[in-house]
Amino acid sequence: MENKIILTGDRPTGRLHIGHYAGSLRRRVELQNSGEYKKIYIMIADAQALTDNIENPEKVRQNIIEVALDYISCGLDPEKSTLLIQSQISELCELTFYYMDLVTVARLQRNPTVKSEIQMRNFEASIPVGFFTYPISQAADITAFKATTVPVGDDQLPMIEQTREIVHKFNTVYAPVLVEPAALLSEQEACKRLPGTDGRAKMSKSLGNCIYLADTADEVRTKIMSMYTDPLHLQVSDPGHLEGNTVFTYLDAFCRQEHFERYLPDYANLDELKAHYQRGGLGDVKVKKFLNNIMQETLEPIRSRRKEWEKNIPAIYEILKKGSDAAREVAAETLSEVKSAMKINYFEDAELIRAQSEKYEEQ
Amino acid sequence: MENKIILTGDRPTGRLHIGHYAGSLRRRVELQNSGEYKKIYIMIADAQALTDNIENPEKVRQNIIEVALDYISCGLDPEKSTLLIQSQISELCELTFYYMDLVTVARLQRNPTVKSEIQMRNFEASIPVGFFTYPISQAADITAFKATTVPVGDDQLPMIEQTREIVHKFNTVYAPVLVEPAALLSEQEACKRLPGTDGRAKMSKSLGNCIYLADTADEVRTKIMSMYTDPLHLQVSDPGHLEGNTVFTYLDAFCRQEHFERYLPDYANLDELKAHYQRGGLGDVKVKKFLNNIMQETLEPIRSRRKEWEKNIPAIYEILKKGSDAAREVAAETLSEVKSAMKINYFEDAELIRAQSEKYEEQ
Repeated sequence: MENKIILTGDRPTGRLHIGHYAGSLRRRVELQNSGEYKKIYIMIADAQALTDNIENPEKVRQNIIEVALDYISCGLDPEKSTLLIQSQISELCELTFYYMDLVTVARLQRNPTVKSEIQMRNFEASIPVGFFTYPISQAADITAFKATTVPVGDDQLPMIEQTREIVHKFNTVYAPVLVEPAALLSEQEACKRLPGTDGRAKMSKSLGNCIYLADTADEVRTKIMSMYTDPLHLQVSDPGHLEGNTVFTYLDAFCRQEHFERYLPDYANLDELKAHYQRGGLGDVKVKKFLNNIMQETLEPIRSRRKEWEKNIPAIYEILKKGSDAAREVAAETLSEVKSAMKINYFEDAELIRAQSEKYEEQ
Repeated sequence: MENKIILTGDRPTGRLHIGHYAGSLRRRVELQNSGEYKKIYIMIADAQALTDNIENPEKVRQNIIEVALDYISCGLDPEKSTLLIQSQISELCELTFYYMDLVTVARLQRNPTVKSEIQMRNFEASIPVGFFTYPISQAADITAFKATTVPVGDDQLPMIEQTREIVHKFNTVYAPVLVEPAALLSEQEACKRLPGTDGRAKMSKSLGNCIYLADTADEVRTKIMSMYTDPLHLQVSDPGHLEGNTVFTYLDAFCRQEHFERYLPDYANLDELKAHYQRGGLGDVKVKKFLNNIMQETLEPIRSRRKEWEKNIPAIYEILKKGSDAAREVAAETLSEVKSAMKINYFEDAELIRAQSEKYEEQ
């Protein structure tokens, strides 16, 4: 095992859905179980969620437990990964505070991720400062745990770059205390951003187009059977199109070889299924049923683990408290190194006091 | 005694000079000794100084002791006032972090004090984020100690207004935890901003136009005897001008009735002296000698107290540590109220855990 450390997490603004699962959660569990990482920190980023939910803190607060339940149900194991709540690690705020001196306003304004998120939220002139500066807060999160590896989508690469710049600047101005992280990009193209069941690019609670990990079997089936496919594919005999066809995008993300043997033995693999759909003669219902079988198989173990844990909410909070306490120790150690490198640990600095006393004795 | 609490302080970027003394320190000692304030917090704002000294942290670090020596030599009494170092109160960073969600970028950009300070420092496009956001950090400083009263010059009024807005917003969104502070303006016009000895508007170390509290008697005399007066007053017999005449500006700030009896009994008061100067026949040297007598009388007790304390630097650090520890307790109490109002104190929130457990039992 190398000394590789992962930091990753989610904003607790709602239950997690299969987009999260395909895009990051599934991979995260694999990384956890790979044995290649010395430490894995999974952060519920409530403080970051508050930066654009200041009028609605209750949403953030209520969703911490939902995200934690989803995490554990998916196979994130508190024995192997440290699950923590961002706001419980005060040291992250102090790191953010000092890193803010190392970044210019102009640099933040150039950050493409911040730019597009500002646009997405219709903030324009009224961006909260906390939201504007969240790349700096992310740098604090990553560096507090000396993370070497941050699993991200390519839309998040500018955030990692910002962190690397801060690390470089700090280590140059003060002392080489911080670790430059590297992005770990997801490999599977289809998993990067799963569209909503209505075919829209983004899954969103307000659009009602998400399949949640906590949905019942019936809810999942209903959502899949009414999914957006190909508006030109009116008759079974019509040739079908794959591009923008959500059912096939989901199949790309979730279907494995063995699913054919189990649920659709007439086809050897996804390519054969796609070919048939394209030339015509394959109905949407058949494909949707196949997708439903796959999703039920995928989600059933998650759902049943969730049901068990839902009976013991205090235990989840106990796990989060234990994780946060452990994380806080690490962050406090980093902060202490940071303050010592900045030489603002005056009271522990016997040499400072001695030198200054001497200076005055000589006068 | 009412429940009035003061917060004030200085950035430790150099020794304090008589501009600081006339503009704030003298008043601060009076306020301390008035018995009208329940608590007085005097903060050495090292973290704020770092926002525009990130490349030169040693300057900030070395000047903490200088400012503390100046404070105590001027009569700030650790038994009556709490002397603290900003960076030692981690809670201030956490308050800043959450207040950043309550202020928009546009609002910060409109702050006239920030605008003019950015101009003064030639920052333009390369403003450090920490400098740009320092009004929010100041709001954290003020509110952490529930200060009711902040002695300021009128150029600082927009800063107090910013704090009041943050307090109002926090108390409205969450719960009425924070105290809205009021500015306490200095009354004496001449003291607001003393010019440099060369007549320039601003005293500055780099211009070498400051009289420091720690200057020796000889240094003070030399600086006064070479002060800028009236370039049109070439002969003693010439009529002299008062406007922009630094010696008279300093007399306005420091001269009291009894100084005439003691050092210049030919004149009853400052008005008589000014009248003589204006009609001609009064030489600069005579006025400068008078000012020198006044300044020596004013500075001598400060100087000699400083000499004593300079022999015991560790004791000063001990005072700062004790003050910082006491201040930290108060700030921690405020932060705890803040986090509890924001309801992000999950692990202490038995009701949250109970309600969420119940919700799942009902399903």
